[in-house]
Amino acid sequence: MELFAVPGLPEVQPGDDLAGLVADRTELADGDVLCVASTVVSKAEGRVYEYADFPAGERARAIADHLEAVTGDEKDPRFAQAVLEESEELLTEAPFLLAVTRFGHITVNAGIDRSNVPDGDLLLLPEDPSASAQRLSERLDVPVVVTDTSGRPFRYGQRGVAVGWAGLPASRDWRGERDRDGRELGVTVQSVVDELAGAANLVAGEGDDGTPAVVVRDWSFGDHDGSNNLFRADEDDIVRAALRDWSF
Amino acid sequence: MELFAVPGLPEVQPGDDLAGLVADRTELADGDVLCVASTVVSKAEGRVYEYADFPAGERARAIADHLEAVTGDEKDPRFAQAVLEESEELLTEAPFLLAVTRFGHITVNAGIDRSNVPDGDLLLLPEDPSASAQRLSERLDVPVVVTDTSGRPFRYGQRGVAVGWAGLPASRDWRGERDRDGRELGVTVQSVVDELAGAANLVAGEGDDGTPAVVVRDWSFGDHDGSNNLFRADEDDIVRAALRDWSF
Repeated sequence: MELFAVPGLPEVQPGDDLAGLVADRTELADGDVLCVASTVVSKAEGRVYEYADFPAGERARAIADHLEAVTGDEKDPRFAQAVLEESEELLTEAPFLLAVTRFGHITVNAGIDRSNVPDGDLLLLPEDPSASAQRLSERLDVPVVVTDTSGRPFRYGQRGVAVGWAGLPASRDWRGERDRDGRELGVTVQSVVDELAGAANLVAGEGDDGTPAVVVRDWSFGDHDGSNNLFRADEDDIVRAALRDWSF
Repeated sequence: MELFAVPGLPEVQPGDDLAGLVADRTELADGDVLCVASTVVSKAEGRVYEYADFPAGERARAIADHLEAVTGDEKDPRFAQAVLEESEELLTEAPFLLAVTRFGHITVNAGIDRSNVPDGDLLLLPEDPSASAQRLSERLDVPVVVTDTSGRPFRYGQRGVAVGWAGLPASRDWRGERDRDGRELGVTVQSVVDELAGAANLVAGEGDDGTPAVVVRDWSFGDHDGSNNLFRADEDDIVRAALRDWSF
């Protein structure tokens, strides 16, 4: 397996043809998977906003006041408003906003980015990242994973995760397959899109020399069952249940 | 960046010289990182046990009874005893045992494996995976990541994670670095050892054709600050707090 960044991508602008920008800069081969950072997908899709686009309602003001009291940092209630509008639910309102996005991904601040936004204040995640992946995949004729970076319980640091995907299943399902000794496998579902996103993030980097599109070559999903469930259903998520019952 | 499996590793036995087995089968180059599955590290270190090695105490019997009632599946109290002995704390006792291992990793069943154990019932994680990584790294003269696969909150499926590492920091710390527009970066700490473990798992696979050692070539940690904190401190982990307060 080999990973390399698509070289020389310019700063992406709203309305840009992202598939075209990638196709002009690299020769994609049969079997490649393209991992694209959600930031550039969002920029191309015009998901750049100003604080003024999110006049704060009562709940957003209450959330920002509470966060300010808890953290000691100044909080803009319009940011809380943006997070609310991008979310189905907030699992925690303090010490940070842990949101369930409208497409099912759980992440702090609904994944809204305040860095890397040249022409605005806020960069929202794509509205439907798997639909974005699907459009890119059709144009480029390879599977596509739309990636973000996200923190996680139990472990420090962010790692790359998939927020959308098309042209490959989210997971390899090993159920029913056997280990070397013929026993049924304990690990049954391998989240390959998350592993691809993490691998791509090793190559992509952050910051002013970040490269938002990475090609994965000579990797194969293989002859396994696939599953497209990545975001846990509510009833299968004890951490979600525990967080709802808890307050900071 | 390129990843390839170390070819032809035999079934590893207690007392085997794992570093020698790897060195005999691949030419490691300067800058390589070796990712090794904890299963083979554990086997070489003799972490294979029988159920009989864990006579169940009162607490283990109570946990197994409760789990059996909740899940409807038969539960061996000796397995619960093994999990207890490998753990500092259980964050949940139902619907599954979510354990804080003695070295700080949080995972179901303290990472004890019941598949892939040819000469016993249970394969325990290495006692101190970073110490194991350190020994391998000194012998092989490359950084080493000891990997496991683990489920996670919010998302279905397992992905590769690091349980131990040596010869490189756990994370790249981007704090103080700037994005393309000169703003300070929002994402500050990138857990590279977890991303390496996930990438290696894409190549390693599971089951009877699994390859437990993977070489990462032409990847560089780069000129960044590093951090060796991977397992969250208790006071920084709101999910741990919420789970303690919660019961199934």
